[in-house]
Amino acid sequence: MNSVKYSVPRLERFCRDAFEKFGFTAAEAAQITDVLLLADLYGVASHGMQRLVRYHKSIEKGCIKPDAKPEIVFETPVSAVIDGHAGMGQLISVFAMNKAIEKAKQVGMAFVTVRNSNHFGIAGYYAKMACDAGLIGISATNSQSIMVHTGAREAILGSNPIAFAMPADPIPFWFDAATTVVPKGKLEVYHKADKPLGAGWAVDENGVECTDAEHALECIDRIKLGGILPVGGMLEASGSHKGYGFSMICELLCSIMSRGATSNHHVRKAGEGAGTCHAFIVIDPAVFGDAQALRENLSVFLQELRDAKRADENVPIYTHGEKEAIAYEEHMKSGIEVDISTVAEMIAICDYLGMDSTAYLGEVDTSAAKESFYKNAEAVG
Amino acid sequence: MNSVKYSVPRLERFCRDAFEKFGFTAAEAAQITDVLLLADLYGVASHGMQRLVRYHKSIEKGCIKPDAKPEIVFETPVSAVIDGHAGMGQLISVFAMNKAIEKAKQVGMAFVTVRNSNHFGIAGYYAKMACDAGLIGISATNSQSIMVHTGAREAILGSNPIAFAMPADPIPFWFDAATTVVPKGKLEVYHKADKPLGAGWAVDENGVECTDAEHALECIDRIKLGGILPVGGMLEASGSHKGYGFSMICELLCSIMSRGATSNHHVRKAGEGAGTCHAFIVIDPAVFGDAQALRENLSVFLQELRDAKRADENVPIYTHGEKEAIAYEEHMKSGIEVDISTVAEMIAICDYLGMDSTAYLGEVDTSAAKESFYKNAEAVG
Repeated sequence: MNSVKYSVPRLERFCRDAFEKFGFTAAEAAQITDVLLLADLYGVASHGMQRLVRYHKSIEKGCIKPDAKPEIVFETPVSAVIDGHAGMGQLISVFAMNKAIEKAKQVGMAFVTVRNSNHFGIAGYYAKMACDAGLIGISATNSQSIMVHTGAREAILGSNPIAFAMPADPIPFWFDAATTVVPKGKLEVYHKADKPLGAGWAVDENGVECTDAEHALECIDRIKLGGILPVGGMLEASGSHKGYGFSMICELLCSIMSRGATSNHHVRKAGEGAGTCHAFIVIDPAVFGDAQALRENLSVFLQELRDAKRADENVPIYTHGEKEAIAYEEHMKSGIEVDISTVAEMIAICDYLGMDSTAYLGEVDTSAAKESFYKNAEAVG
Repeated sequence: MNSVKYSVPRLERFCRDAFEKFGFTAAEAAQITDVLLLADLYGVASHGMQRLVRYHKSIEKGCIKPDAKPEIVFETPVSAVIDGHAGMGQLISVFAMNKAIEKAKQVGMAFVTVRNSNHFGIAGYYAKMACDAGLIGISATNSQSIMVHTGAREAILGSNPIAFAMPADPIPFWFDAATTVVPKGKLEVYHKADKPLGAGWAVDENGVECTDAEHALECIDRIKLGGILPVGGMLEASGSHKGYGFSMICELLCSIMSRGATSNHHVRKAGEGAGTCHAFIVIDPAVFGDAQALRENLSVFLQELRDAKRADENVPIYTHGEKEAIAYEEHMKSGIEVDISTVAEMIAICDYLGMDSTAYLGEVDTSAAKESFYKNAEAVG
């Protein structure tokens, strides 16, 4: 058995109860669960249940502080700087994006930066919050340094994803992508599945291409040299400096503008938050006149992109967010397939928290599960 | 002879006088010249003198209207929508960026969109304007459709560059990149130099990779199918959908938010402007507290990136804008090497405008010049 299919309400129940046991209020646990489940519902397995083991370790080692509350340390009508005080990234980020939405509704646009946070899940969740409110949303985060920039063999930048969402019909434009070729979560998924990495994804401590997921993850997490390449790969001729540049924009929006820790200064130490920084930007389309007209124009344009002549007649062209919307419908109806290694981690979390794993997750044969790479990690903030 | 070296004042004199003869005021001609020369000074030959033949054709065919004045059609304290009325892109864009700077100085941040413009030169010129004023600047433009998005064999999106500049010492962060693997201008440079295109740069009308610059340019300019690929190449495994996504963000900021023409609806018809759309965003770093502290933090971080362990000990690591700053110093001191084909085009412009080409450009043997691809182009707005 390589995976188990669970209904969405069942995963939701497990996840909410686990986070309550970790020390969050019922409302907080529901909010964290909503972020994690959206990743699985959208088919972004790397940022859903698969991440639980990391949050568990981070809470256990005191990197994530369940009782911390975000604090606004500087504010103008168009902006705010928030100190997360090493709380749970999802809670800090929902607070920050709500603040950006509130300000944008009043003055037309707003930019809220966050420092001293932790991993916040999928970046696109927060851009979607603005989009669901009829606004244009941008969200971004830095991370532990994992990206080897053009000309280097040492990771300074993070995976540094940027998400952008804007209302359209029948589905919004929803883009969420790491500025690395692939996110670290994908390496974890490949590691669990025992698959070799793609070409041009990672380099080792000598700056040589590396397709071994475990070695690449070691390069990243044991703070060896090496890491993941930017989108555009290794050379300027394939646009390496462009991926490096987009990653820089993310870093500037998040850590430089919040005066927090750049990716290379993230903390990996028990008792201390990672120092993760985020950015949340909201624009009210009404600042350009007729918001409904913008929405209609975008809807027409997205359809033109889908209707373009195909490279392969049998392979449809997607706009960003379309695959995720399809996956969402399918998963809500039929449930979510969870990798057996992840199920084993969820069972371990039940055991740790004194929850009856059989009641939550059923009787599962986890003999095919791979041991988590993070089991013995020192600190995983 | 394959190139001629000219001093900067000499190119400036030629360029100013040419644009005055084209019908612009002395101040306008000086402004246009400043944008074009910065490209050559920064080593971005594709967007400097090399572009003159296109502006010439566009003015001659009535696509660029020298007497048009930009008009603000909608405005709030944080935003403006400007109709360029098919004027010269550089003039409209300087007007728009100045408006964004003015608003950002008052309310902290601002977003100005432009529709019905024409090609505006290097995107980074306008981001630099904000940066020179101590602010954070973002500029972007759509273009004629030249990018084949993931899964298609037809260009819908433009080269869609995004530029970002932020003050730092000793040099600012200055990023300016097309979201294609390479800009169209690079194909023109390769065409003039008779060099084969790089791997993963372009596909032909059948969706097959194409390394012939002339054929690729024909695909783009004769509105055949095919075009240039996004950064990330052809496949999702190498991040094609990410380059496609960043190009979409550019398109949304420019054409959707200004309610102008998306790249695939740009006009290529004598007497009509291209319909190009731009975006200019300015953020005052003071909205996050201490602007000087932000500048210092960024300066430290940029130095950490330069000081990272190198893949090759003998090859330095650059931050964005550093190569351009070095090129600028060198060109100001020693002059700018202009490709002989471009010189031939400049001489042709002198002849067309009744300017004494020998007085401006010297006695030049242009027998090695390649005929411009654009000589017989129908309309090049």
